[in-house]
Amino acid sequence: MSALLELKNYIAEMVELSAAAAIAYWDARTYMPARGVETRARITGKLSRLAFERLISPKFGELLAAAEKELAEASEAERAMVRMGKRDHERARAIPPDFYQKFVELCTKAESVWEKAKAEANFALFKPYLAEIVDMVREMAKMIGYKEHPYDALLEEYEPGMTTARVGEILGGLREKLVPFLRELLERGTPPPPVPEGKYRKESQKALCAEALRLMGYDFSAGRLDDSAHPFTIGLGPGDTRVTNRYNEEDPFPALFGALHEGGHALYDQGVPAELYWMGLGGGASYGVHESQSRFWENQIGRSLAFWEFFKPKLSRRFRVFARKTPEEIFRMVNKVEPSLIRVEADEVTYNLHICLRFELEVELIAGKLKVEELPERWNAAMKEYLGVVPPDDAKGVLQDVHWSGGSFGYFPSYALGNLYAAQFMEALRADLPDLPENLRKGNTAPVLSWLRERIHRFGRMYFPEELCEKVTGEKLSAEPFLRYLREKYAQVYRL
Amino acid sequence: MSALLELKNYIAEMVELSAAAAIAYWDARTYMPARGVETRARITGKLSRLAFERLISPKFGELLAAAEKELAEASEAERAMVRMGKRDHERARAIPPDFYQKFVELCTKAESVWEKAKAEANFALFKPYLAEIVDMVREMAKMIGYKEHPYDALLEEYEPGMTTARVGEILGGLREKLVPFLRELLERGTPPPPVPEGKYRKESQKALCAEALRLMGYDFSAGRLDDSAHPFTIGLGPGDTRVTNRYNEEDPFPALFGALHEGGHALYDQGVPAELYWMGLGGGASYGVHESQSRFWENQIGRSLAFWEFFKPKLSRRFRVFARKTPEEIFRMVNKVEPSLIRVEADEVTYNLHICLRFELEVELIAGKLKVEELPERWNAAMKEYLGVVPPDDAKGVLQDVHWSGGSFGYFPSYALGNLYAAQFMEALRADLPDLPENLRKGNTAPVLSWLRERIHRFGRMYFPEELCEKVTGEKLSAEPFLRYLREKYAQVYRL
Repeated sequence: MSALLELKNYIAEMVELSAAAAIAYWDARTYMPARGVETRARITGKLSRLAFERLISPKFGELLAAAEKELAEASEAERAMVRMGKRDHERARAIPPDFYQKFVELCTKAESVWEKAKAEANFALFKPYLAEIVDMVREMAKMIGYKEHPYDALLEEYEPGMTTARVGEILGGLREKLVPFLRELLERGTPPPPVPEGKYRKESQKALCAEALRLMGYDFSAGRLDDSAHPFTIGLGPGDTRVTNRYNEEDPFPALFGALHEGGHALYDQGVPAELYWMGLGGGASYGVHESQSRFWENQIGRSLAFWEFFKPKLSRRFRVFARKTPEEIFRMVNKVEPSLIRVEADEVTYNLHICLRFELEVELIAGKLKVEELPERWNAAMKEYLGVVPPDDAKGVLQDVHWSGGSFGYFPSYALGNLYAAQFMEALRADLPDLPENLRKGNTAPVLSWLRERIHRFGRMYFPEELCEKVTGEKLSAEPFLRYLREKYAQVYRL
Repeated sequence: MSALLELKNYIAEMVELSAAAAIAYWDARTYMPARGVETRARITGKLSRLAFERLISPKFGELLAAAEKELAEASEAERAMVRMGKRDHERARAIPPDFYQKFVELCTKAESVWEKAKAEANFALFKPYLAEIVDMVREMAKMIGYKEHPYDALLEEYEPGMTTARVGEILGGLREKLVPFLRELLERGTPPPPVPEGKYRKESQKALCAEALRLMGYDFSAGRLDDSAHPFTIGLGPGDTRVTNRYNEEDPFPALFGALHEGGHALYDQGVPAELYWMGLGGGASYGVHESQSRFWENQIGRSLAFWEFFKPKLSRRFRVFARKTPEEIFRMVNKVEPSLIRVEADEVTYNLHICLRFELEVELIAGKLKVEELPERWNAAMKEYLGVVPPDDAKGVLQDVHWSGGSFGYFPSYALGNLYAAQFMEALRADLPDLPENLRKGNTAPVLSWLRERIHRFGRMYFPEELCEKVTGEKLSAEPFLRYLREKYAQVYRL
């Protein structure tokens, strides 16, 4: 057997174990009975451990080294398999298992303390845990290694090849433009009409979401739509990518845009060739690029006027209260901008400001320039400066997100990068498909999906995100397309 | 670490892998999208292979040998863990992996040929495959080893410690009594009224099934009831035992008794202590004892007059057509005896005759005394002799069951033994709980479940079935209690 083939088989086994864990995870979030929790934790723990043991095994290192000698004859996918395999192997080996185990235990404890602290709006409770997490994360950044900034080592987990300097430059420039733009909108614009009050039945919402997913090209013979406490998308391997959603009976839009969002993730997943998946190249170029696909369908498509010209009758067939509204009214309604305290509820204009704030604080924390006890004050000051609102307490401020309690530093930027990639991809797509609005007005999204499949999905995780971005758009990532998009769109929405 | 503890950890890992495979299996039969089939086969194949590799590993043998030296200090459960571990290890090692792989491939092919042969009622198509399977199974019996009869080696898989001679004696005696009893019933008895024609809505049936499961004591916070093509029960580990069912809208009883049947399996599973489960001692004493629990609830309880005195109003609340029927009429209706061609549709009197026939043919096939080409003729002759009916073609005769195409020889007897165990357990239970009918009339099944838990469930797979039977009833397994039960019950049903 060639070394490459041996490596392929080795990686496939890790992927199979991870897919088995994904099945167990999906079930735990949808159908598992309450008393199954403890057993399930044991089973998923075992599967993850078996996959992780294989990932850090010296055997894997040897197979990678042997395969590297055969790269001259290898396909592009095989070369990517070796590159990503090495990267994953080296990152996982950088942290000694005992240290990592201690970190996982700390985070498990910290998450439950964070829950309590958030419920009581008591940052002091969480503070010592967060301080310990930050210390261990800084330690890990050293173990992993970096060229310029310790935060680079963390960012790499979510955005392979991306640096703190690059993200700082992109998000910094974005923030400088967004803050005055937001002020202008709110001071000079005409706000859109509100969502009509009413009871929006869950079953009708769910049917509408399924309709939207079908419209996008989501393949229900290779997926499902189920209920869960928090919406998510999960790939259980080729031919099986599932989405979940939740429903608010006072407002039909969160579920609808949730479906478009998760559907965007799912289309990416459904579009990765099975061959790449089993080579460990499923899952998308990065968290940011994955997020670009969800935000693309949710915002670039789903919150566009052309989309509502097609979709409005579908909405009003389920909910008669919209019958007399125009597509333009719906378009404006779903694009309302309102500075708020909570990231997950934020609109397209303010969302990235929430991320800028977190990114800046994270970088300083990891650099050792900001102390955990200074966080609430810095948080509130930045909220006031960027968004013009101040949290009444820390539950609605620094304690709102789960990420830090789970030790996930370096994750937040992906959300903003996703928005930027989505806009930059859309500019490239529009150049290729000038009749996009016309097609959307007819409900024809097929050319969009084909374009995304051809340019992005079919490569899975073969390229680093910036490589992919250049391949797709001819340029490195920039905030400019996103800013152009906002200006054009909100001029319409706010009648500037 | 003590050798026993090391062995426990080793076994727990195999159990965890099997539980993970069970989650994937359940999902595949209930919610998996159509296009997920291929990926799923790969994932479950990998999990089974990882568990099997551990089962046959010399490491397991060494751990078992080391643990055996510590048995003087061990608990009863630990001794059972070592005994069953050795048994499983040695059986699995007896078949060389290459031989087993060839057998699995043959069966996979044979199953699809069998499907076609059954659809076309063409035994000739299936014959060469079955002949090859029988040859390989006879070979495997030699590899596994046996004292008296090669069939012993196969029976052992399903009924640890049971022999062909014992089963032959029990089932032979049973058949001798059943054949004339059946004739007497049909010639001299008054047949029960038929099930009223009507449309029995699936949703109402499902709600009734859930009600019946709750009545039995099935814990929905540690389980679920879902739809599937064939009803089954599956344990996904402590706290998570699920049942599935299917519904025929022309007759509400198959689903109801299906629920009681699966519920019986599920209660056994829910009653095994978690500690035993992780020691590889979940899953019941044998297939026959597991079947005894399903048949106990389905027939001994669910088809009793006392049960219908309580449950009839619940049935007629869902289906008004039963409102004017008496509990006794329902009791008679659900106990109709009718010799039929198909085992899975058979009533309590004829069911075991179907099994006797299969057992006799299997024993002769494995002994080399019966040739595969003689099967259809022997089948039809036995059907005529035992049941008085002759299949119009082989699809309704020798081709009806999937078992042989899957290489499952030795499995069928468990179905009959289950019925016999159930009756023998019921006699012991009645001696302990003389007010059983009174309790059932009030819908109080709690004492029944407590008795089963205390006497059977809590031991999991610690004892061989005949050991357990003696422990529970003071006697070895015998057909007499079952025959007494039939005579008493059918005298009432058929007004003899």
